[in-house]
Amino acid sequence: MTKPITEDAITKLYCSTYPEEIAIADLGCSSGPNTFFVVSELIKAVNSVRQKICQKSPEYQVFLNDLPGNDFNTIFRSLSIFQNKLREQLGPGIGPCFFTGVPGSFYGRLFRKNSLHFVHSSYSLQWLSQVPRGLENNKGNIYMASTSPPNVLKAYYEQFQQDFSLFLKCRSEELVDGGRMVLTFLGRRSDDPSSKECCYIWELLAMALNDMVLEGVIEEEKLNSFNIPQYTPSPAEVKYEVEKEGSFSIDRLEVTEVNWNAYQNETDLSDAFKDGGYNVAKCMRAVAEPLLFSHFGEAIIDEVFRRYREIVADRMSKEKTEFVNVIISLKKA
Amino acid sequence: MTKPITEDAITKLYCSTYPEEIAIADLGCSSGPNTFFVVSELIKAVNSVRQKICQKSPEYQVFLNDLPGNDFNTIFRSLSIFQNKLREQLGPGIGPCFFTGVPGSFYGRLFRKNSLHFVHSSYSLQWLSQVPRGLENNKGNIYMASTSPPNVLKAYYEQFQQDFSLFLKCRSEELVDGGRMVLTFLGRRSDDPSSKECCYIWELLAMALNDMVLEGVIEEEKLNSFNIPQYTPSPAEVKYEVEKEGSFSIDRLEVTEVNWNAYQNETDLSDAFKDGGYNVAKCMRAVAEPLLFSHFGEAIIDEVFRRYREIVADRMSKEKTEFVNVIISLKKA
Repeated sequence: MTKPITEDAITKLYCSTYPEEIAIADLGCSSGPNTFFVVSELIKAVNSVRQKICQKSPEYQVFLNDLPGNDFNTIFRSLSIFQNKLREQLGPGIGPCFFTGVPGSFYGRLFRKNSLHFVHSSYSLQWLSQVPRGLENNKGNIYMASTSPPNVLKAYYEQFQQDFSLFLKCRSEELVDGGRMVLTFLGRRSDDPSSKECCYIWELLAMALNDMVLEGVIEEEKLNSFNIPQYTPSPAEVKYEVEKEGSFSIDRLEVTEVNWNAYQNETDLSDAFKDGGYNVAKCMRAVAEPLLFSHFGEAIIDEVFRRYREIVADRMSKEKTEFVNVIISLKKA
Repeated sequence: MTKPITEDAITKLYCSTYPEEIAIADLGCSSGPNTFFVVSELIKAVNSVRQKICQKSPEYQVFLNDLPGNDFNTIFRSLSIFQNKLREQLGPGIGPCFFTGVPGSFYGRLFRKNSLHFVHSSYSLQWLSQVPRGLENNKGNIYMASTSPPNVLKAYYEQFQQDFSLFLKCRSEELVDGGRMVLTFLGRRSDDPSSKECCYIWELLAMALNDMVLEGVIEEEKLNSFNIPQYTPSPAEVKYEVEKEGSFSIDRLEVTEVNWNAYQNETDLSDAFKDGGYNVAKCMRAVAEPLLFSHFGEAIIDEVFRRYREIVADRMSKEKTEFVNVIISLKKA
């Protein structure tokens, strides 16, 4: 979905100066089968252009970033398989690709000044650097919700503004002039930050937790003090921060939707994959389990997600359920 | 021991151009309490000079390299503690230090062209890229030994030449002009590559293994096909390769000794630390166990090192036992 935008951006970058080396950073790379995917798409895009115009391949420096708790060992140990496959696919003319792991938060400097040509980040920037302060009266909710008081929405938005503008400032120091960024957020179309399109998935998790409070399995106080450190911005909010910070010009800003169950329209899959409740609960578990675990402890986890799966399956059968992606392509002015 | 040489080199580097950023690579960084030690010494040395002359601190980019099997997760998870400590020690004027992990063999390119200012490697370059070919008649030995046939010594030396000259070529591409390297090898003073000063420690391990062959615990054929991929060069051999490759000028080339049991002269230690056989066997086990494990299997390991400890303790009580270090400080011409 973001592929044409990413390819367009790296192609423009390459064709503007035909650099001999390209330093690419993937921020929030995670460690799984998708870790190398974007990087390989970027390298393939450059390679395809440089072959057409008979240029010598640049050298690639790839920085894979995530928090220090990420499993870099697994990434590093699968690196040579990936590199061999890439070399096979792209043929002997491809320049060397150097991979490094960069542990740390992207809400701070991670790289030397003017050392990057291209920054990519996908589904990471909706995560805030911390849970906003002042959410004490967000009772019964775990994120912004239709029942959240106005001060809660304000606190979330201000944390987003602070984090995202710091992100832009750091990256503008690290990117060379003319350098580019493509950022994909989980976001929303609506102006209302507690809109269903971005908050419903968390409201359903809150339902499961509230049920367990009613049954006395979870303490009410424990639930009231739990909030998700996320903000799903609208395109206008993203644009506003970029313009305020001032280092970047906006090349493209787009919004797309993806069904909660990405597998829904595939035909060749087993029923397990088509079980939307199962798939969505599994995805959300990967995201939310560490947060729930550290706040509520291990004992409740399985039960929360069993209930969540049921609730999600029920809703998916009755209404259209989609995530909204906000994608922005930027150039350092 | 190598500290004055390393400090001298980084100080010369810094004072030659007062760069705004310094990119340092530690090749073979391992993952333990010493991983950050050299890097922190280098940064402290630069910081001390720049304070004296009232220069603004440079930004530091640190590349920590080791093979992909190294435990980078542990390094990355202890990074913030190290960074906080360093900032505390050096005060608020210190520039940002960016750390990255670089998985891969240093007998190949690891970094972009002209992207490094300083390369450090300690006790890693005596490891060859592979066991040399043609060692079939090195029977009963596991390394070069006084009883090794001449073709064995030749095969080891040629592998060293090939590996070290490739190392120099790769680094010369990666270092900026005027960039510097300090390399510490486990080496020897003698011209004879099977000299006791470098080979005895392995001959004692071979003794333990040969005893187990005699007792039928290890198959003779299995022992005959086992050889250690190491070469402990003389200063003359190191110098010869540097001059032949031609990219570097030699600033300093020194040889020092260190007792097999580095704790021997400490007075405040428990008896366990003073037990030379125990200490040396433990150190050598950390080095040799992976090699023995993959060749002989797990079953024999404990017994080999029990016997080795006894043999080492006996020899240490009867003769002077020292490792030889060869340290070379180089500048890209």
